[in-house]
Amino acid sequence: MGSVDTSLHKHTSGRAAKFADSHSSPHPLILYGGWFCPFVQRSWITLHEKRIPHQYFEINPYHKDPEFLKLNPRGLVPTLAVPVDRQGKEQKPLYESQVICEYLDEVYDDEAQHGRDLLPRGKEDAYLRAKCRIWIDHISTRIIPAFYRFMQHTEGKAYSLDEAREEYLGHIKTFVEALDAEGPFFLGERFSMVDVMLAPWLCRMFLFDVYKGGVGIPEEGQGGKDEQVWNRWRKWANAVGERQSVLDTLSDREQYVDAYRRYAEDETQSQVGQATRGGRSLP
Amino acid sequence: MGSVDTSLHKHTSGRAAKFADSHSSPHPLILYGGWFCPFVQRSWITLHEKRIPHQYFEINPYHKDPEFLKLNPRGLVPTLAVPVDRQGKEQKPLYESQVICEYLDEVYDDEAQHGRDLLPRGKEDAYLRAKCRIWIDHISTRIIPAFYRFMQHTEGKAYSLDEAREEYLGHIKTFVEALDAEGPFFLGERFSMVDVMLAPWLCRMFLFDVYKGGVGIPEEGQGGKDEQVWNRWRKWANAVGERQSVLDTLSDREQYVDAYRRYAEDETQSQVGQATRGGRSLP
Repeated sequence: MGSVDTSLHKHTSGRAAKFADSHSSPHPLILYGGWFCPFVQRSWITLHEKRIPHQYFEINPYHKDPEFLKLNPRGLVPTLAVPVDRQGKEQKPLYESQVICEYLDEVYDDEAQHGRDLLPRGKEDAYLRAKCRIWIDHISTRIIPAFYRFMQHTEGKAYSLDEAREEYLGHIKTFVEALDAEGPFFLGERFSMVDVMLAPWLCRMFLFDVYKGGVGIPEEGQGGKDEQVWNRWRKWANAVGERQSVLDTLSDREQYVDAYRRYAEDETQSQVGQATRGGRSLP
Repeated sequence: MGSVDTSLHKHTSGRAAKFADSHSSPHPLILYGGWFCPFVQRSWITLHEKRIPHQYFEINPYHKDPEFLKLNPRGLVPTLAVPVDRQGKEQKPLYESQVICEYLDEVYDDEAQHGRDLLPRGKEDAYLRAKCRIWIDHISTRIIPAFYRFMQHTEGKAYSLDEAREEYLGHIKTFVEALDAEGPFFLGERFSMVDVMLAPWLCRMFLFDVYKGGVGIPEEGQGGKDEQVWNRWRKWANAVGERQSVLDTLSDREQYVDAYRRYAEDETQSQVGQATRGGRSLP
């Protein structure tokens, strides 16, 4: 067992700090989060995209707020406190980032106020919605676990660093082939839940340059037979990486570098880190 | 690498054979499945529950039908061929059992014809729907992977058989505590998608008696401090196990015993089996 990671910064910084600050007043809809957690960022991007009034509450993982633990005894972030009465005094918890995002998208459905739905809605879009769900599943069960196997690679592992990199890039390539041909987003010009689901890990890909000798995506013109695939990836990555909701929910780069050191050394005690180390599905 | 499992029965039997036979005529909505696969059974139960006209097409895993491979080059079952034009001549594929089930539930939504929706619908049920999604996630990312770690336990593993059993039962108990207190189903009297998602593995739990010295759920009156939990489990298990859609999509027990021998010996080359052996998320 490693020790508790007390080096983890306790607060958001940069643009995320501003966004958190502008949502610090009491509100019956509360997102309990951690600046560092990509699953939290999914929920945060959704709240931002849909301009949903809410309160953001930063959880210190070593001194969890009692109000938060009362709501979700498991102490997992993200947790969304949802008002279930008209006065907004009684709240129930939701957790699992995808569940939270879909809930927000379904409930805050007034287009004039909240913009277009992130997951295509209505019976006429049932096939398109199902297609989105297939690729969200690909992100959650293939790309993300491969991200952590790559990030947590150390000398003693049964697989090599190159194998981990190739596996990760393979899942990315499969995803790119499912993107709308023109783009820039998964569904074309329309930003959708599929983009939200992968965005936080896109933002953390620079950490492979810091810790793992590079992510391995070829520079422009160097992609060989896959040149077209990587061009399309770059178009997606640029558009998603520059999206305001994505930028506004990011802290300073150095904080991520510090936070991911324990992942890169495979010393993290986070649930995701432990699951990856033990060969388990991500929690 | 083990050899290809040619001992696998090629056809449904028992009640599943009857149900398949009654859905053998050409139809633009086609479920490509394998009698043996619990993920297929999820889709099949949904089609049955909602009385959805369709064609069932049994896939021989060693000689996959070319029409099927044209539709889904990955060759995974379940695959649903969905008519996308009014004449039903053009079809597109869906895969991932949960995606297929949700799609069917959303599109075949006429209550008079198809019965009540399996996943609570409408904005007023948004919290309930999200709650269902949380527990479907628990089934998919905790109970089912633990089922396979338990089933595929062999002498050489890093964990003991008792540890595998305890982990599996622990996830079941957490699920039981989320069930409606009265029941019999997850949501009470209403049979829902949560029940569908776990039903196929309930039907396969007898295999732990055959291969692993018992599943470890105490007999009535023997549950000690957990007696109430296991009573509630039995109520759920009886109701789901006797549901017509569940029974009608089951083949003869001996076929499952034969099919799971290679799981029990950890020799299966199925994607689920290999993922479990390699410590990966289930595909």
